[in-house]
Amino acid sequence: MPPVSNLASYIDHTVLKPATTKEQVQQLCEEAMKYGFAAVCVPPYFVEEAVDLLKGSTINIATVIGFPLGYSTHKLVEIEQAKEQGATEVDVVINIAALKSGNWEFVAKEIDLLTNTAHRLGLVIKFIIETALLTNEEIEKVCILCANSAVDYVKTSTGFAGGGATIEHVKLMRSVLPATIKIKASGGIKDRSFAEALINVGANRLGCSRSIQIVES
Amino acid sequence: MPPVSNLASYIDHTVLKPATTKEQVQQLCEEAMKYGFAAVCVPPYFVEEAVDLLKGSTINIATVIGFPLGYSTHKLVEIEQAKEQGATEVDVVINIAALKSGNWEFVAKEIDLLTNTAHRLGLVIKFIIETALLTNEEIEKVCILCANSAVDYVKTSTGFAGGGATIEHVKLMRSVLPATIKIKASGGIKDRSFAEALINVGANRLGCSRSIQIVES
Repeated sequence: MPPVSNLASYIDHTVLKPATTKEQVQQLCEEAMKYGFAAVCVPPYFVEEAVDLLKGSTINIATVIGFPLGYSTHKLVEIEQAKEQGATEVDVVINIAALKSGNWEFVAKEIDLLTNTAHRLGLVIKFIIETALLTNEEIEKVCILCANSAVDYVKTSTGFAGGGATIEHVKLMRSVLPATIKIKASGGIKDRSFAEALINVGANRLGCSRSIQIVES
Repeated sequence: MPPVSNLASYIDHTVLKPATTKEQVQQLCEEAMKYGFAAVCVPPYFVEEAVDLLKGSTINIATVIGFPLGYSTHKLVEIEQAKEQGATEVDVVINIAALKSGNWEFVAKEIDLLTNTAHRLGLVIKFIIETALLTNEEIEKVCILCANSAVDYVKTSTGFAGGGATIEHVKLMRSVLPATIKIKASGGIKDRSFAEALINVGANRLGCSRSIQIVES
C-alpha cells in the first residue's frame, strides 16, 4: 500500500478521558501546533481553553456531543454551546439505543436536525455511529441516513464501546457513502501502518490519542 | 458479617449500555416489579417508557446526568428534563476533569447548584464521584463538598472507568460523610456476598445490572 505523505494533517489529536486535566489539554494543543495536526478534540469543559491556546493557528477545535453513549437528549443545545465557546467541529454520537430499538425514524430525524443546526452555525459535523455495536446492515442503513442529511463525516467509534475502527468497517462505509461524505476512523489506532491502511481504504480523518507515536513511527 | 434481609430493596436495577433496547427496558421494569427493587436506572431516552411501565408501582425511576464522563456542560437542563419526563431520582456525574485540574471551586459550585435544582424539583440526587479515578484525599474532599450541599447520596462509580465500588472506598466515604448523607455503591457488584459486605460497611443503595443473580445467589 502507498505511504501517506503528511500523515499529521489527517489526525484529530484527541484527549477524552473523564479525568483529563487542564495541563493535558495545554500539552495537546502545543503538540498540535508542533506537528500540524488537523484538529484537537477535547471535552466540552476545555473548549475555551483550547480556543485560547490555539489562537492564530489554523488548527480546528473539535469537541464531543452526547459522548460516549449517544442517548443524551440535549445534543442540540450542546452543539449551540460548543459554537458559542469557539469550537469549529462537533463529533456527535448517534442515538444507538434508538437504532437498536428499531426507531430509525428517530435516528434519521436527529441526524437531520443536528446537521442542519451545525451547518447553520458554520460547524463541521461528524456523526459517530459506533461500528463495534452495529451489524453490517445497520452500518449501511445509518450511513445512508447520514448521506441523506449531507453530514460532513461519518465516524466509526467513541473508543468506549470495546472496539474501534477496522479496515472492514471503513471499506463498508466507503462503499455506501457518496464521495462527498467523508469518513473519520477512530478508536484503537496505535501505529503508522494501521493509520495508513485506514486512509488507503477511504478514511479522510483519524481520531487518535497516540498521534505522536503514530507520526513518529 | 450479618446477612441483609430484603436485599432487593437496596438495589437500583440498572441498564446503561449504549445499545440498550426498548425490550431490555421493558424486561428491566418487569423484573423490578417482580423482585421489589428500590428503583430502575435507565438512560434518559427511556425514562418515559419506564414511567409508563411502572405506573401504579412504588418503584423509583432513576436516570443519569452527564454520564459517564461528567464533563457535560448541560447537567442542569438535563435534570429539568428528567423531571419533566417523570424521573424521581437523578444520578449525576461530577466534573472529574475540573476536580483533576484542581478547580475545586467549580466542582463545589456545580454540586451546590445541581442539588438545589434537584431538590426544588422534588428529585433525589446522587453524585457519582468515580472513586477509581480519585486519590483518597480527593474522595474525602469531594465527600465534604457533597455533605456541605446536603446531597442525598454520594455514589461510587459509573461502571465505565475501569473500576467499581470497593469495600475500602465505601468505608472511607462513610467515615467522612455525616449519617444524613447516604452512599450508593455501584460498578462490578456481581454476587450477594459482595453486595452484603458493601451494605455492612455503610452502603445504603446498590447500583447493579446483575441484580437477579445477586438476590437469587
